[in-house]
Amino acid sequence: MGSDRAAIGIGLLGLGVVGSGVARILSEKAQVYERQIGCPLQLRRVLVRDITKARGFDIDPSLLTTNPADVLDDPEIQLVIEVIGGDEPAYTFLRAAMQAGKFAVTGNKEVMAKHGGELLRLARQHNVDLLYEASVGGGIPIIAPLKRDLLANDIMSVSAIINGTTNYILTAMSKRGVSFADALAEAQTLGFAEPDPTNDVEGIDAAYKLAILATLSFHVDVHPDDVYREGITKLGAPDFEYARELGYAIKLLALARRRDGAVELRVHPSLVPQDQLLARVDGVLNAVEIEGDLMSRVLFQGPGAGSLPTTSAVVADALDAAVSISNNVYWPHSFRREDGVKPLPIGEVRSRYYLRISVVDEPGVLARIAGRLAEARISIASVLQKEIEGTPEAEIVIMTHESREADLRKALAEIEERDNIARVEQVIRVRP
Amino acid sequence: MGSDRAAIGIGLLGLGVVGSGVARILSEKAQVYERQIGCPLQLRRVLVRDITKARGFDIDPSLLTTNPADVLDDPEIQLVIEVIGGDEPAYTFLRAAMQAGKFAVTGNKEVMAKHGGELLRLARQHNVDLLYEASVGGGIPIIAPLKRDLLANDIMSVSAIINGTTNYILTAMSKRGVSFADALAEAQTLGFAEPDPTNDVEGIDAAYKLAILATLSFHVDVHPDDVYREGITKLGAPDFEYARELGYAIKLLALARRRDGAVELRVHPSLVPQDQLLARVDGVLNAVEIEGDLMSRVLFQGPGAGSLPTTSAVVADALDAAVSISNNVYWPHSFRREDGVKPLPIGEVRSRYYLRISVVDEPGVLARIAGRLAEARISIASVLQKEIEGTPEAEIVIMTHESREADLRKALAEIEERDNIARVEQVIRVRP
Repeated sequence: MGSDRAAIGIGLLGLGVVGSGVARILSEKAQVYERQIGCPLQLRRVLVRDITKARGFDIDPSLLTTNPADVLDDPEIQLVIEVIGGDEPAYTFLRAAMQAGKFAVTGNKEVMAKHGGELLRLARQHNVDLLYEASVGGGIPIIAPLKRDLLANDIMSVSAIINGTTNYILTAMSKRGVSFADALAEAQTLGFAEPDPTNDVEGIDAAYKLAILATLSFHVDVHPDDVYREGITKLGAPDFEYARELGYAIKLLALARRRDGAVELRVHPSLVPQDQLLARVDGVLNAVEIEGDLMSRVLFQGPGAGSLPTTSAVVADALDAAVSISNNVYWPHSFRREDGVKPLPIGEVRSRYYLRISVVDEPGVLARIAGRLAEARISIASVLQKEIEGTPEAEIVIMTHESREADLRKALAEIEERDNIARVEQVIRVRP
Repeated sequence: MGSDRAAIGIGLLGLGVVGSGVARILSEKAQVYERQIGCPLQLRRVLVRDITKARGFDIDPSLLTTNPADVLDDPEIQLVIEVIGGDEPAYTFLRAAMQAGKFAVTGNKEVMAKHGGELLRLARQHNVDLLYEASVGGGIPIIAPLKRDLLANDIMSVSAIINGTTNYILTAMSKRGVSFADALAEAQTLGFAEPDPTNDVEGIDAAYKLAILATLSFHVDVHPDDVYREGITKLGAPDFEYARELGYAIKLLALARRRDGAVELRVHPSLVPQDQLLARVDGVLNAVEIEGDLMSRVLFQGPGAGSLPTTSAVVADALDAAVSISNNVYWPHSFRREDGVKPLPIGEVRSRYYLRISVVDEPGVLARIAGRLAEARISIASVLQKEIEGTPEAEIVIMTHESREADLRKALAEIEERDNIARVEQVIRVRP
């Protein structure tokens, strides 16, 4: 179908990896998209840091500007796409765009995690939409399905592998026995990890994304600070070996779960049973499993990052926004908001646990450890004990039944402090 | 948020397994949904076959009617939900509803597969929407993601396990060595298979769903008759054993793929490499993998049937339609249509093949078979030969490199007819 509708003016903020993909695809597929949505999209201005920088593709140099006002104050621009990343100035730009009555699309997980609730309210006040599919899971549709397709459900839980860097590292450690440091170096060489990997390996990036998913799933404002967080830097080769022996993979899971009027929010390494699909999501792939009261469990899996997959999500949002603008519609999906979230303190979490404990290899040690656990009402499901070659030490691996985390921590502290015969090397929560 | 908008009147056609779920959930979650979408939904009439039949839940008997006109001609009903199933009278009812200016939601794969293009055009003519998320994949969002979230992509292929009955049977045959007949009987006892299982085990149901997915993915009208189809009734225990030995699972895959200006459309048993997620989708689960030029591969997995998962999809569509009605919007997503599909004849398909051939166990047999294949330019990737205990026969399993199907068929016919030393027991295409 042809179209005689007016073009939708687009302003692009940022021309990095994703921004370049967006600019290039909007140009290459202009005719297809016009047929698709019934009106042309016109890229009118692109905010960059450096106009003189060489770009790997053709873009009209007159579109480039270093002045944000050229985008934000241009009345011909009805849709602003923000792919700068980071908190500021992206946050200020998004606010300004919507206050000027422009629709906004962003792929910015940090801004959406920290200010999502406020920005979505601002969008409503100004009768525009703020779309952010690309902020979680790259090319995997997850935001829109939560807003629309799963709306009939009460969402019970979200379980996700949403950081490709750490999943790449964990896969390398697990499948090839590489050390954390070597796997990280490899990921950096391949461009899967930043020079400073803190945000990824400490679970900060995953916590941002979990905050976004939990906000949407539970209709409450979740801030990344509400998320309990442990990174992957302390995992060692023995953990991967024992996990495999016991029938598990180790994954950095982001978990959000309703429980007793509160919400569990946590990002940490987890033992995932080998027969669950999440255990088999390897390398840089991402996956999100959503559990609802009607549809039970649905899993979305795909590329969690990369220029083109992220472009796929950004452009889908842009096409959606353009249809709304062209038809003069404000589409008020999913704006139900409930009272503030009450994050469940980590001590109140109930889980099964994997414990790896170094002990002096002498009679009665296991009995004393088991006794301490029993006093704290931690029930043991299975035990492995192995000598550590060439040392007088042994290693005990205990899988517990479901226990309260505060009870477990107390018992472990007592084992370490009171008896002086054991060192707790590792505690990993087990996915049910 | 409360609402002072007028209620949306809903008419429900059918009160079977899915219809009952829809009626019950619309009643139980009325307040939640009203907060969600900003207006109440009011179930005004339900078409049933038998008013006196006992229902497993509370429903106001005055809502029930056996007269379709009570739903279709009621001006207070703005949204019709059709969950009768089958071609007629569902098709006629959907047409009548839209001609009367009502929005329509259906879970009817047969109607959408056979008449989808026409019904969607009718919807446009009358400025209403026709939503059909529940027609494919039960509780898995797949129609809406294809319409919206993946819209930036050119879809290259769809690979799907979209029939839970056959996947249950194949899983039982593979994991527990059960025969086809026993697995089918088990599925019937558990309610996973109909008393007459033809539609499922012959791939007819999967072909309907593939036609719907291909129509949406490739923007062409695909009819189920365009789909090449083989069922699962001829698979035997040896095939599952050899497949496992060779590193594959056997799945009934529905495949749609662009190739050289034509579209491959086929439903048949396939060998799926064990390291692909589709190989691990077991039991009654469904999964759909979509490949696009931007997002590469994205997989959606979940419950493909069942009252509540299907209700989840129907109600999501109903909520979406209600927002459109309440805001007086016609939402013209994805109505691009390209020229008619050119289905690729099965003879032109290129694939790798698994061949299981019974032979008289005498010298030179394998050489003659290999010679026939070589003449037809079928290149052999690997061969297994095993004696069949207690007989003078042996079994040869050949994996070919990629070959043209017409060439393969010709070679196999010659092997069977000209030499009279071999019988082709099984041919299964291999997923790349």
